[in-house]
Amino acid sequence: MTRTIVASATKEVIIGFDQPFCVIGERINPTGRKKLAAEMVEGNFETVIKDALAQVAAGATMLDVNAGVTSVNPNETEPGLLVQTLEIVQDLVDVPLSIDSSVTAAIEAALKVAKGRPLVNSVTGEEEKLEAILPLCKKYDVPVVAISNDETGISEDPDVRFAVAKKIVERAADFGIKPYDIVVDPLVMPIGAMGTAGQQVFALLHRLRHELKVNTTCGLSNVSFGLPHRHGINAGFIPMVIGAGMTSAIMNPCRPQEMEAVRAANVLNGTDPNCMNWIKTYKDYQPHVAGSAPAPQSTAPSGGDGGRRRGGRAGRSGGA
Amino acid sequence: MTRTIVASATKEVIIGFDQPFCVIGERINPTGRKKLAAEMVEGNFETVIKDALAQVAAGATMLDVNAGVTSVNPNETEPGLLVQTLEIVQDLVDVPLSIDSSVTAAIEAALKVAKGRPLVNSVTGEEEKLEAILPLCKKYDVPVVAISNDETGISEDPDVRFAVAKKIVERAADFGIKPYDIVVDPLVMPIGAMGTAGQQVFALLHRLRHELKVNTTCGLSNVSFGLPHRHGINAGFIPMVIGAGMTSAIMNPCRPQEMEAVRAANVLNGTDPNCMNWIKTYKDYQPHVAGSAPAPQSTAPSGGDGGRRRGGRAGRSGGA
Repeated sequence: MTRTIVASATKEVIIGFDQPFCVIGERINPTGRKKLAAEMVEGNFETVIKDALAQVAAGATMLDVNAGVTSVNPNETEPGLLVQTLEIVQDLVDVPLSIDSSVTAAIEAALKVAKGRPLVNSVTGEEEKLEAILPLCKKYDVPVVAISNDETGISEDPDVRFAVAKKIVERAADFGIKPYDIVVDPLVMPIGAMGTAGQQVFALLHRLRHELKVNTTCGLSNVSFGLPHRHGINAGFIPMVIGAGMTSAIMNPCRPQEMEAVRAANVLNGTDPNCMNWIKTYKDYQPHVAGSAPAPQSTAPSGGDGGRRRGGRAGRSGGA
Repeated sequence: MTRTIVASATKEVIIGFDQPFCVIGERINPTGRKKLAAEMVEGNFETVIKDALAQVAAGATMLDVNAGVTSVNPNETEPGLLVQTLEIVQDLVDVPLSIDSSVTAAIEAALKVAKGRPLVNSVTGEEEKLEAILPLCKKYDVPVVAISNDETGISEDPDVRFAVAKKIVERAADFGIKPYDIVVDPLVMPIGAMGTAGQQVFALLHRLRHELKVNTTCGLSNVSFGLPHRHGINAGFIPMVIGAGMTSAIMNPCRPQEMEAVRAANVLNGTDPNCMNWIKTYKDYQPHVAGSAPAPQSTAPSGGDGGRRRGGRAGRSGGA
């Protein structure tokens, strides 16, 4: 059974086929968030702190930490800022972290100060990346996200993406890194632009799980890019990828609809024993929808129907 | 490609692996609905009419019609009442119907007056049922729901349930009924009572699709029986069964959360070409949740980040 172990200073989390889905909170990331970027440049970490606490409170299993505030000289500024951000977050919350940077020096600087066993985000199939990141993962004995693109970009052919993932796993093995420490991102395309994006990913997840036997992740909300009511698409996508074998995702845990989908899929996938987490979370649930439909009406047989069989269906619930 | 054709007087619907998920509206069923049962006994079809219109308006692909108002002498009363109900519904709405009864005489009476090509709900693996229902399906050339239990009840062992389904398909073949006219119900147990219920069904669906090559259905809400916030579990279950290969379900289409899950899964499963139905349904969507989170924040790359690569992730959306 494939198990990727990540840890904070005091708390270990397993990413694995038999584990609850690992929600990696994506919020601490200035990419596309100009206000957050400006704050971080000024040494103001108020939003970082707020986002860290909110994501953990919302149920994040891990937090991604990215300090990419600028595209100008990131090699000079990013290592220091990533270290600073990481230290603030790891002193604040007790979940494992993902060190997210495209700057190798920033990743190494962060690895030096990180407590526990962080996840490195990420390596790709690009030669330069493989040579830079894999030795660091070996040196610090940490797992890594492997994104299935290479010098040629992101292939629209899922077989090529699988081949890139396989190459990364093999190259990692050359460095002494085991497959269970590689978390492959098969790359999720926007379904609005490519109608087969979902089926591609489901098929890829199956191969990654059964052939490469690796854990998997993705930037989840990408699937709904450009569509109306993105949360609805995301919330439908989550149970499908979990059913197809995905074991983690980089996503926004502060979205109730998405987190509800994660919790439901954990119940249905058998990783929420006795539905404990579901019942704890929703035992007093009241729908907040204005003008919503009336209270649920069970279609399961009630005791009051005289035990009569309707089309062979009665007694179902009693069968379990 | 397995295709089950059902039809109303003027409208044909295909249940199939490459088709949008077939939502069979469950509401016209007095089982457990005492008020509806009392109305129907009195010849009052107001609720039936209301439920038929509401379900079609909500997006039902088909409607199930059940007139089992009593467990006393159903053989005498049910044929007439089912015919009456069916005729009212088929004159009112233009979707294919499912004739749902445990009384063989009621099924035959309904088949005599049904327009188009209804679905018979249901046969089981019980010898008496097989002998009663399959000849009717052949005689009227209609497809049938095959529930995977037999004289011994509902097995908790999915292999037994698969074997029962296989037996029904084989017996149907003896009567000249093709596998594409059998819609197997693998039987969904409540996940609260049996933690493996989800995984059982996913595995069964895979076998039913790839080994027996049949369409499938289930009484969907049974999975959440006994749990709080059942709609959340149901809405998570729908994308998982669709991803696992299920092609229809008997469910309540008047539940927005469940129907949203169906529509999202159709998008992601590639059966909503160009996301047309999704966009049409949700283009003006406004979340109705009181005190909900702020507007969506896209994690897809924006044009404003200078094309900088963050951990190898930028350019994803552009890749499709």
